[in-house]
Amino acid sequence: MSSNANIPSNYVSDVQPILYSYWRSSCSWRVRIAMNLKEIPYDIKPISLIKSGGEQHCNEYREVNPMEQVPALQIDGHTLIESVAIMHYLEETRPQRPLLPQDVHKRAKVREIVEIICSGIQPLQNLIVLIHVGEEKKKEWAQHWITRGFRAVEKALSTSAGKYCVGDEISMADCCLVPQVFNARRFHVDLRPYPIILRIDRELESNPAFRAAHPSNQPDCPPELPNK
Amino acid sequence: MSSNANIPSNYVSDVQPILYSYWRSSCSWRVRIAMNLKEIPYDIKPISLIKSGGEQHCNEYREVNPMEQVPALQIDGHTLIESVAIMHYLEETRPQRPLLPQDVHKRAKVREIVEIICSGIQPLQNLIVLIHVGEEKKKEWAQHWITRGFRAVEKALSTSAGKYCVGDEISMADCCLVPQVFNARRFHVDLRPYPIILRIDRELESNPAFRAAHPSNQPDCPPELPNK
Repeated sequence: MSSNANIPSNYVSDVQPILYSYWRSSCSWRVRIAMNLKEIPYDIKPISLIKSGGEQHCNEYREVNPMEQVPALQIDGHTLIESVAIMHYLEETRPQRPLLPQDVHKRAKVREIVEIICSGIQPLQNLIVLIHVGEEKKKEWAQHWITRGFRAVEKALSTSAGKYCVGDEISMADCCLVPQVFNARRFHVDLRPYPIILRIDRELESNPAFRAAHPSNQPDCPPELPNK
Repeated sequence: MSSNANIPSNYVSDVQPILYSYWRSSCSWRVRIAMNLKEIPYDIKPISLIKSGGEQHCNEYREVNPMEQVPALQIDGHTLIESVAIMHYLEETRPQRPLLPQDVHKRAKVREIVEIICSGIQPLQNLIVLIHVGEEKKKEWAQHWITRGFRAVEKALSTSAGKYCVGDEISMADCCLVPQVFNARRFHVDLRPYPIILRIDRELESNPAFRAAHPSNQPDCPPELPNK
C-alpha cells in the first residue's frame, strides 16, 4: 500500500460511537450500512430534518456539523462529518470487512461510483436544494439529475459489476447505491433502463447490514411510513 | 495502513497520461494540481464546455465519460473519471509527494474538506446546473451555496489549518480549495468572512504546481481571459 496512514494500536476508543442520523437521509444511511457491515456498535441520535424547520439548523447541532446536515459521527474522541470521509475513516481504523477492494483499479472504480452518486446526484436532489427549487418544479428537477447520474452509474456497472457494484464483494459503492435507488423511487424515476442497478439493489435488500440500516428500521421513523 | 491496496511493481505504465480538461473547469483543475505536485508528466486534450453546445456531450466523449463532464484521465491503460477518485488513484499508485497526511484523523479532516467542496459546493454551482437554474437567478443561486459551504470550510480550517488546509503539508484539500475560491470570485462572493481560506489561497498562489495548473496557463484558455 502506497498510502501511509499511521494507526497507533491504541487508536480505537472503547466508547460507543454516536451517529447523528435522520431516518430518511441517504447520507446517514450510507454510514449506517458501513457501520453495520463492519459490526461496529453505535447509538443513534436522531436529528429531524423537518421538525421545527429542521433541527440540523439549531445552534447546538451547528457546532457538531457546520454544514447543518446529517450525518455526523462521534467516534474515537473526534466528531467526523461528510459520509464519504467517514466511510474512509472507518475503513482505515477498522479493517475488518473491507469496504474497498485490494486492486487499485477496482478501488478507483468503487470511488468513481461513490463520487457519481455523492457528488453528481445526491447533492442536487437534497432536501434543502429542493426547497430552493420550489414545490412546483422539484419532482422534475430531481428526476432529471437522478436519471443523468444513473445512466453513468449503469454504464460503469456494465464493466465493473459482479454480484455487487464492483465484483463480488460489497464495497462503499453499494453503501451509496442502495439509498440512492430509494430516493429515485421516491421521485418516481423510471428505473427500467437500469437493470444492473435494480439487480444489485434487489441482491442487497435481504442483507442484514443493509436491512438494519433501512429507513423503516430506524428509531425515528414515523409509524406510518409512506415508502415502507 | 489498514487499507490493503495491491499494487504490482509493474503497475505504472510508461505511456504518458492524457487528461481531458477544460481550462476553467474546477474539477479538471484539481487533477492538474495533483498531477503537477506529483510531477507526473501528462498531455492535455481540451474539451470545450461551451463550443457547439459543449463538446462533453458529443458521442465520442460520452464514451470516455458517461457523466459528460471533465475531467477524465487516461492512465496505466485505464480511463478514470471523477476528480476525487482520480486523486486517490494517483495517491495509491504514485506515492511520491503524498496528498494525504499519515495521521488518520488528519486524513479524515482532509477528506472532510474535500467532500464539503466537491459534494457540498461545486456540484451546485456547476455550469450545467446553472443552465437549469436560468440566467436571471444563477448568480444568487451560486452565491448562496458557495457561502454556505465556505462557512463550513472556514470552520473546519479554524482547527485544522497550518500553512495549508490541514497542517503544513499540501493535501487534496488544497487541490480542491484553490479552484473553488476562483469560482467564488467569479460569482462575486464576499470572501472577507473567510480569512483562513483567503490566507491559504494566497499562500498557494505562487506555488509552481498550482500556478502551472491555473486556468490562465492552460492551452485552451482564450487569449482575452476576463479573470486573468
